[in-house]
Amino acid sequence: MTVEARKRPSFTIWILAGIIVILAAALIGILLFLKNQPQPERGVAPIREIEPLDPDSQNWGINFPNQFSTLLKTKDNNSPTTFGGSAPISKLEADPRLVTLFAGYPFSIDYNEERGHMNALIDVRATKRVNETTAGTCYSCKSSNNPKLWSEMGMAKFDSTPFSELGKLIEQPIGCANCHEANTMNLVVTNPALEEALQARGKDWRTFTRQEMRTVVCANCHVEYYFAGEGKYLTYPWEKGTKIEEIVDYYEESGFKDWEYPGTGTPMLKAQHPEYELFTADSTHYKAGVACADCHMPYTRDGAAKFSSHNVHSPLLAPDAACGQCHTDVPLVVGRVATIQAQVNERMLAAEDALIDAINALKAAAAMPGVDEAKLDEARTLHRQAQMMWDFIAAENSMGFHNPQEALRILGKSTDLARQAQLLAVQAAGDTSILAKTP
Amino acid sequence: MTVEARKRPSFTIWILAGIIVILAAALIGILLFLKNQPQPERGVAPIREIEPLDPDSQNWGINFPNQFSTLLKTKDNNSPTTFGGSAPISKLEADPRLVTLFAGYPFSIDYNEERGHMNALIDVRATKRVNETTAGTCYSCKSSNNPKLWSEMGMAKFDSTPFSELGKLIEQPIGCANCHEANTMNLVVTNPALEEALQARGKDWRTFTRQEMRTVVCANCHVEYYFAGEGKYLTYPWEKGTKIEEIVDYYEESGFKDWEYPGTGTPMLKAQHPEYELFTADSTHYKAGVACADCHMPYTRDGAAKFSSHNVHSPLLAPDAACGQCHTDVPLVVGRVATIQAQVNERMLAAEDALIDAINALKAAAAMPGVDEAKLDEARTLHRQAQMMWDFIAAENSMGFHNPQEALRILGKSTDLARQAQLLAVQAAGDTSILAKTP
Repeated sequence: MTVEARKRPSFTIWILAGIIVILAAALIGILLFLKNQPQPERGVAPIREIEPLDPDSQNWGINFPNQFSTLLKTKDNNSPTTFGGSAPISKLEADPRLVTLFAGYPFSIDYNEERGHMNALIDVRATKRVNETTAGTCYSCKSSNNPKLWSEMGMAKFDSTPFSELGKLIEQPIGCANCHEANTMNLVVTNPALEEALQARGKDWRTFTRQEMRTVVCANCHVEYYFAGEGKYLTYPWEKGTKIEEIVDYYEESGFKDWEYPGTGTPMLKAQHPEYELFTADSTHYKAGVACADCHMPYTRDGAAKFSSHNVHSPLLAPDAACGQCHTDVPLVVGRVATIQAQVNERMLAAEDALIDAINALKAAAAMPGVDEAKLDEARTLHRQAQMMWDFIAAENSMGFHNPQEALRILGKSTDLARQAQLLAVQAAGDTSILAKTP
Repeated sequence: MTVEARKRPSFTIWILAGIIVILAAALIGILLFLKNQPQPERGVAPIREIEPLDPDSQNWGINFPNQFSTLLKTKDNNSPTTFGGSAPISKLEADPRLVTLFAGYPFSIDYNEERGHMNALIDVRATKRVNETTAGTCYSCKSSNNPKLWSEMGMAKFDSTPFSELGKLIEQPIGCANCHEANTMNLVVTNPALEEALQARGKDWRTFTRQEMRTVVCANCHVEYYFAGEGKYLTYPWEKGTKIEEIVDYYEESGFKDWEYPGTGTPMLKAQHPEYELFTADSTHYKAGVACADCHMPYTRDGAAKFSSHNVHSPLLAPDAACGQCHTDVPLVVGRVATIQAQVNERMLAAEDALIDAINALKAAAAMPGVDEAKLDEARTLHRQAQMMWDFIAAENSMGFHNPQEALRILGKSTDLARQAQLLAVQAAGDTSILAKTP
């Protein structure tokens, strides 16, 4: 080996070292350049202190422009889906059976598909269901003024104030303060009725995980509730549990009724929008750890910022964003929804037919002289329970998709009970000719 | 820099080169040693030619010892699950309502949970449902002798041969030849009734993908069928489609009955085991491309060999192997099965109660002098259809899990129709007192 040959490695090393020095200098130069660039004005760090319970979402929006600007979209996201969506379609025109099923109750006069969060206040003031005697309780789910009002005046006072009078204090639709704590932006239970209902079940939401809160805050509104007593105190019927049988048992024990069905004399119950109860009744998605917000407020990007869309609506209106967070084959899962909703809809309409048959038999029996009153009362009980079970799915905003098996189970049971009510009415009348009668 | 210092790299290079040479030599030595080791005797390459349609699975087993040895396990895999499994539990003892529902028909005398494939022949010969008049058709799903017999004598002759006489030609339980072509081991439709049913639907299984065949070959047996005409010709009622409504329509048009219900005079239908029809009726798993074999014959390893387990049984008996092929959280999905099956079971029992009420009303009405026969016939039609729909789920071996929403939809409809049958019976009788009567 020559001295020349032995020198070669040294040359290579010097050349490599040179390249490294040049690259390092270039990198440092780029980093220094980037460091001195101005920050983008938008950011997630609070740049303005928010008043606790501030009703005005615009103030929160200065800190959270993405969340706020998507919330604003709920004003105009008025697209329908096959069985829902945000278009204010008349449910009574779409399915005239409802006029019969809610006869004697305001829902037989005005019952539309609900629109987005930003329209809640306009729509509650516009509905024909509201009149002189309406309680303030009806504002419970309509405004971001509520958390402050509940804190200042207490829920009992809020609920017992007439709707028209309370309305003077309310100017904001649903907004940030309904679900978030100012500044920390933690998800919080703001509706005292939810706080009380959870307490009654031995639960404290302050111990819940963030993922649990991404479902529980929706229960500030998307639940079954009723107005208890003279003061129309907002109450969730959850004392025995949140499954439909437990809710029906609760109402049976409490003796509460929403109205009396004309002609049959049945004390009736109207279901509200029990999305929380149906979804959490061991649905597949719930058991898999999915939260309401995962599908209805999917993560979205604006440049480098990742945030939950606050344009809350049916996942079917943007399935790539909603379902695509977990499912790779979005057309497949959208097809699944269509199949399942068609199955639920079929059974829902069958339950309605059975209920109307029961109503007609009950009416005819109630009009018969010498009717067996005890049997008729049994029939009324089944009529009430069957209609409440049907309504638990019919009023729920997913055509059963939030929990397909439970929805079909409940509708099957509802239909069975409605038919049994019809049978008991015939027995009470002691006259089979009433079955041939149509009203 | 000294000469000594410049020499150091050369030393390092020589040392490294030496190590590389030693390692390479060691590696080559190990590879040569392994190459000269004898091959394991077991292998997947055919080492023996199999006669086409050879009924004896042992002969096939020489080439496919893993598949054959797991098939043998179906002889002893007699574990129960909550609602099924392979233990020969008496369904009549587990749910005495069945004795009423099948009154007048052999299933009211003997009706057990079925055991594994290897026990099929023993069990069909042991059941009290078989007697002197039983048709050879009853062997259709019980033996690997069938493909050869069908090929030699034709299905019409096979079916019209008395059970006792045909039995002399049958010695093998279900085996390889029922689903595989010899030597190629391709999956094939061997049951002529399936071939004909697919043809009637305009389908040719020879164009199906392998994954489709992993479901279709199960339809060689796991289907709804009936024995048509005097020759007891094995027929699948698929002409209008494979959904329950299409099957019921087919039977209504054909006028076929399995038996007449004693006392009510209803021409009845007995469902067999429509696993294929229920699963393929747009179930979630089916739509996701899952085949029967994926869950019931999951891939298994024996050393380096990967094969489909032929120990066909409930996935619940080995959920890690079955569900774990796709699902990462096996306890979660096993919990889902439990929830769904409990929901289906609840609705199944409710349908049974409604059917028994309808039967009692029909019996009482049929015994009334001056009964409205036209109305009674309407009631009988609903009784037949309701019971067939219930049985479509009750006889199906998954307690609805093969298609939860469809199962719950069908049971809901069955219950509704049964209650309507009861109502029509009361109308036919013109006497409400029959509702108070118990048999």
